Amino acid sequence: VTIVGVGLMGGSLGMALKDKGLAKEVMGWGRNEGRLEAARELGAIDRGTRDRGEALAGTDLLVFATPIGVTSRIAPEWFADAPPGCMITDMVSVKGTLVDDLTALAGPRRYYASSHPLCGSEDTGVGAARPDLFDGKLCLITPVPKTKKPAIGGVQSLWQALGMTVISMAPTRHDQVVAAVSHFPLLLASALINQIGDEKLLKFSGTGLLDTTRIAGSSPVMWAEIITANKKAVLGQLDGMMETLMLVKQHVKSGDPARIKGWLQRASRRRRKM
Amino acid sequence: VTIVGVGLMGGSLGMALKDKGLAKEVMGWGRNEGRLEAARELGAIDRGTRDRGEALAGTDLLVFATPIGVTSRIAPEWFADAPPGCMITDMVSVKGTLVDDLTALAGPRRYYASSHPLCGSEDTGVGAARPDLFDGKLCLITPVPKTKKPAIGGVQSLWQALGMTVISMAPTRHDQVVAAVSHFPLLLASALINQIGDEKLLKFSGTGLLDTTRIAGSSPVMWAEIITANKKAVLGQLDGMMETLMLVKQHVKSGDPARIKGWLQRASRRRRKM
Repeated sequence: VTIVGVGLMGGSLGMALKDKGLAKEVMGWGRNEGRLEAARELGAIDRGTRDRGEALAGTDLLVFATPIGVTSRIAPEWFADAPPGCMITDMVSVKGTLVDDLTALAGPRRYYASSHPLCGSEDTGVGAARPDLFDGKLCLITPVPKTKKPAIGGVQSLWQALGMTVISMAPTRHDQVVAAVSHFPLLLASALINQIGDEKLLKFSGTGLLDTTRIAGSSPVMWAEIITANKKAVLGQLDGMMETLMLVKQHVKSGDPARIKGWLQRASRRRRKM
Repeated sequence: VTIVGVGLMGGSLGMALKDKGLAKEVMGWGRNEGRLEAARELGAIDRGTRDRGEALAGTDLLVFATPIGVTSRIAPEWFADAPPGCMITDMVSVKGTLVDDLTALAGPRRYYASSHPLCGSEDTGVGAARPDLFDGKLCLITPVPKTKKPAIGGVQSLWQALGMTVISMAPTRHDQVVAAVSHFPLLLASALINQIGDEKLLKFSGTGLLDTTRIAGSSPVMWAEIITANKKAVLGQLDGMMETLMLVKQHVKSGDPARIKGWLQRASRRRRKM
């Protein structure tokens, strides 16, 4: 197994594979010698290298655990050098045209299917990696018409072996779903923090505000890239929220508790079902 | 001590006073016999009654733990019947004109100061009451120019004895602060849930969305009343958020990750300081 990028996600994958005895050898590729060494010491990988040829020698599973931008930039060389028959997947959280592009790169001799394990943390880096990160969580796999059946089956088995429930959907649908349940909530939590203009007010926040804004503490660099990559779906959510707030404004303005109550009830019922 | 309304807040107050040996007898007043009996069995009160005269006999501290509407409606009779020299406070979460009104009712012979312990839970009722609910939390007390100094001192000592840090501010400022850190966040969390139109999408939510929307599971009846009572400050927050989202929309539309990154960085830094 070869993992490209050994941060929180890649590191956790390595740990999980080793923990469950699913890989003969976990090879990690990264640009930084010190971080590869740290990953090895933490038991996330067996060996680390900065050399692509060395990373790919004899591998039968290649996993990209790199951010969107890096993944599309480096994919052509990695796909070209991957051994024929190799299974390939990525863990990129916005699909866009990536799946079509990488499926074309895979050609007839390699098996590629795209995946997105729905797990993570506001922490980043291999130091935050955990072997049970994927356990009991959902993984979305996003095949396109040209995706080979064995690629879907292989990638599905990988995540299932790590304790995940796998759901399959088209890349466009995937991007809408994650905009609604992940990318837009991050944006809104950040807006809520920034809305509280006077920092002194933050000391008055109870557990309610603390929970509501927790995800706003996540990596701004990573999220700026994700949100930009999923621009269209995120803009749809933003427009929807502005409409919703206009409606709420009318309810509040009316001064009639019954109007706001009905609207809150819908939210409360749905939240309690989650 | 007499507690008017024995739900989560009133019940927790009774438990805390008894736990710390701060009251000779905790008397609970409520409209429902069964709920008073439950409060007594849980140890939240020593005795319960539906009779105001009985509830007030010989008390030296009277605490309203009733919702805003109920409190202003019943206050005239309670203040009139309270023993002279009695210390009075409320735990109402929106002050509006309540403090001025009740200060006038207190007259020269009773000591009234208004308070708002910043604690709670999405659960309601005496069944959710806990003796340590107030411990280590903030309590806002909101005197007006006519509030008597001994009333401020007495109410402050009460909450401090229960482990709270007490901060004093004017009622208008209080209402703005809680709109920003509590009432508006509840509204926004509810908007986020309602925004996810398709309930099937909720199964894709990770811990991020779960945390972000937790408070939306709170009592719609209670919150509809709070939000309506704090209409002006909540509308100010709503307008502010619509402006913020317009700005974010421009950032996202630009397709430049650096623009959204700067904005997310501000939120992330502030969140990590909380």
